[in-house]
Amino acid sequence: MTTQTIKVGICGLGTVGQGVIALLSEGGDVLSNRVGGTIELVHVATRTPKPEVDTLGARDSRDVFDVARDPDVDVLIELIGGTTVAKDLVVEALNHGKHVVTANKALLADHGEELFALAESKGVALRFEAAVAGGIPVIEAVKTSLAGNHVSSVAGIINGTGNFILTEMAAKGREFSDVLAEAQALGYAEADPTFDVDGTDAAQKLVLLSSLAFGARIDANAPFKQGVDSVAPADIGYARELGYRIKHLGIAKRENDALQLRVHPTLIPEAKAIAQVDGVLNAVMINASGVGELLLVGPGAGSRPTASAVMADVVSVARSIASGEQPSIHSMGVGFSAMSQLTIADINEVSSAWYLRLDAEDKPGVMASLTQCLSQHGIGIESLIQKPESAALAKVPVILMTDEAPTRAIEQAIADIEALPSVGGPVTCLRVENF
Amino acid sequence: MTTQTIKVGICGLGTVGQGVIALLSEGGDVLSNRVGGTIELVHVATRTPKPEVDTLGARDSRDVFDVARDPDVDVLIELIGGTTVAKDLVVEALNHGKHVVTANKALLADHGEELFALAESKGVALRFEAAVAGGIPVIEAVKTSLAGNHVSSVAGIINGTGNFILTEMAAKGREFSDVLAEAQALGYAEADPTFDVDGTDAAQKLVLLSSLAFGARIDANAPFKQGVDSVAPADIGYARELGYRIKHLGIAKRENDALQLRVHPTLIPEAKAIAQVDGVLNAVMINASGVGELLLVGPGAGSRPTASAVMADVVSVARSIASGEQPSIHSMGVGFSAMSQLTIADINEVSSAWYLRLDAEDKPGVMASLTQCLSQHGIGIESLIQKPESAALAKVPVILMTDEAPTRAIEQAIADIEALPSVGGPVTCLRVENF
Repeated sequence: MTTQTIKVGICGLGTVGQGVIALLSEGGDVLSNRVGGTIELVHVATRTPKPEVDTLGARDSRDVFDVARDPDVDVLIELIGGTTVAKDLVVEALNHGKHVVTANKALLADHGEELFALAESKGVALRFEAAVAGGIPVIEAVKTSLAGNHVSSVAGIINGTGNFILTEMAAKGREFSDVLAEAQALGYAEADPTFDVDGTDAAQKLVLLSSLAFGARIDANAPFKQGVDSVAPADIGYARELGYRIKHLGIAKRENDALQLRVHPTLIPEAKAIAQVDGVLNAVMINASGVGELLLVGPGAGSRPTASAVMADVVSVARSIASGEQPSIHSMGVGFSAMSQLTIADINEVSSAWYLRLDAEDKPGVMASLTQCLSQHGIGIESLIQKPESAALAKVPVILMTDEAPTRAIEQAIADIEALPSVGGPVTCLRVENF
Repeated sequence: MTTQTIKVGICGLGTVGQGVIALLSEGGDVLSNRVGGTIELVHVATRTPKPEVDTLGARDSRDVFDVARDPDVDVLIELIGGTTVAKDLVVEALNHGKHVVTANKALLADHGEELFALAESKGVALRFEAAVAGGIPVIEAVKTSLAGNHVSSVAGIINGTGNFILTEMAAKGREFSDVLAEAQALGYAEADPTFDVDGTDAAQKLVLLSSLAFGARIDANAPFKQGVDSVAPADIGYARELGYRIKHLGIAKRENDALQLRVHPTLIPEAKAIAQVDGVLNAVMINASGVGELLLVGPGAGSRPTASAVMADVVSVARSIASGEQPSIHSMGVGFSAMSQLTIADINEVSSAWYLRLDAEDKPGVMASLTQCLSQHGIGIESLIQKPESAALAKVPVILMTDEAPTRAIEQAIADIEALPSVGGPVTCLRVENF
């Protein structure tokens, strides 16, 4: 075999960086054979020294920019996170002609356009398999394996923290805030869990995945977001009575020449495989013109799974270098100039079926008022559960599942319902996808 | 963008060939952008003319070798099936410097070594995404996305006919032969379903998948095979009582420096996602050192899904050509000379838990004799179901689930059990995998 050596540098030695070092050091001849050359870790950089990490004899810097400027480095692996220093670092590396592999979805969601265009202009690769759904090789699947298809929709459980919380709430009837605290203690959720809870993290991944799947430039703020904290344990129970599970999904769907982009808790029929994906697992379901429906399930986070995805990119780039070829510089699978601008659907016009939960007085005429509020906005009722009267409560829970209706219509109907004197408090409202 | 044109020829215009033409013709600018050039169908060949197929203006030959020799063709797509003419055709194409894409698992299982070596020596690509699990991009996943991992096991539902039959048997309690006849009528099973039923088709796919996953040369006859026809409706029912589903799996597992290769009906705990994959769907579960467990689910056959996988290979090769690069010639992800010879585990020494079903007289001492037959071969019992006595039957069904034991031990125990005067007829014996 060839004796070509591909030299990599790692910026950031957190959990993923340590996972990459582990996979590099375990790789041995098997890895070298797959690459057709040797991958050598030549340089690592962390702001504060990490003497406890064995860096395989690599040069160890305090300034990550040293790696970007190191003439020895062929491939820079960006694992410092954030969108400020990380951006400058990636720009510097690309400007120095390095190939870059990153797991940083926030960086690419915010600055992808600039960075992808820069990489292409410099003739180097910028790869990001690890940025979406951790160890699941969904980026490569969409970029290459489904390239002969037109994708019609992508729907994914792409935030493991949110899925862990919903799974625990479902299994034990626990409250959101209670499970979140445990997730933080277990290290599944960040100290500041805002982006996991409000859907920002999932939205960033959805933007990347959709850009690839639809070959379009998509703004990081394009997705509609509804947080996982809008689900109460009672909703999970009622959804089950109706034959549904609740998952926090990122959904991109092409319909009527516009692209729907939305992140929200979603009722899914329990028979769908994605409804059964529990715990910290991630899953991505793709519908495309050739293959039909494809489901990929695996670990969405964690040291070694994320490192596996980083290594997928490193090996792909290293293989090209080892065989004397130029790695593909089209990060999004298409030339940057060929990426289109798609119309993003106005969330107010997007239709789905709906799950509503409210408290109402258990007396004659109340159901008639409720159904009238819906029907006057053109919304039909699919099913209805009214819980039996309880001596302890002045009002009883009513659960409705509606036919398909636009967001605007359901919001108007809900405003009408909340104004009824027989209804107490706000109406809980969740989307239903029958896929 | 570039105006490079990549010229493809298709040999065989059956269901998959027509699917490929459909995807090519629907591709439009999206496909051209992804390739960075234009894919043009320039030549098709079928033994008998198919005037009903719109071949997009391509030259139409009766001799498939005309395509292999056509100086215009860059990529030959082999979809004629079989292992004789198809082999000569692929050899001819490779010798003429064509890249080859094939969906033919039988061809590669039987002649892969020779063909992969020839492709490599000629500096051309030989790709086969469509040969395993139809539309599921499992070949690319193992070859590239998991390249930084050591794979420890692969287990797959990789024969859609078998899975359809088991699903129907489970849903309706129907007999194997009855469902098989329906599957043939629906076109899910071949007129001669031998290879689907006896596991040969799954074994061929398992050999390909394992060669990739373990970087090893594997003989087509290496896998142990037990057919899907060894399952009776009663077994499916009893398995459910025990919390299991029965799937016909291809399993490759590395253990103690040897590679287990086996295709057989398998009891799987019902909570495992792969146990829930029903109908004609395929699924592949991979365990690897970095990612952990990954599950890919999708259509394993059919015109468009298989064509989607063919197109994945065509696009990958065309992309390289369009950007002036050499497509990778390493069909198995490693240089052919770097592929190892792994020891294949002797099936007699391979251990698993076991499901046994037999008919025995319902009288004192019978259970003691049964358990003694097992214990004298070192086999413990995990659970036992004895069905209540029926006036109509002299014997009652007894279902046993054992601890892990080697095949040799369970076979000896079964011989002893079948020799007991209180036991009637043969013992049904299936493997249990708790994964």
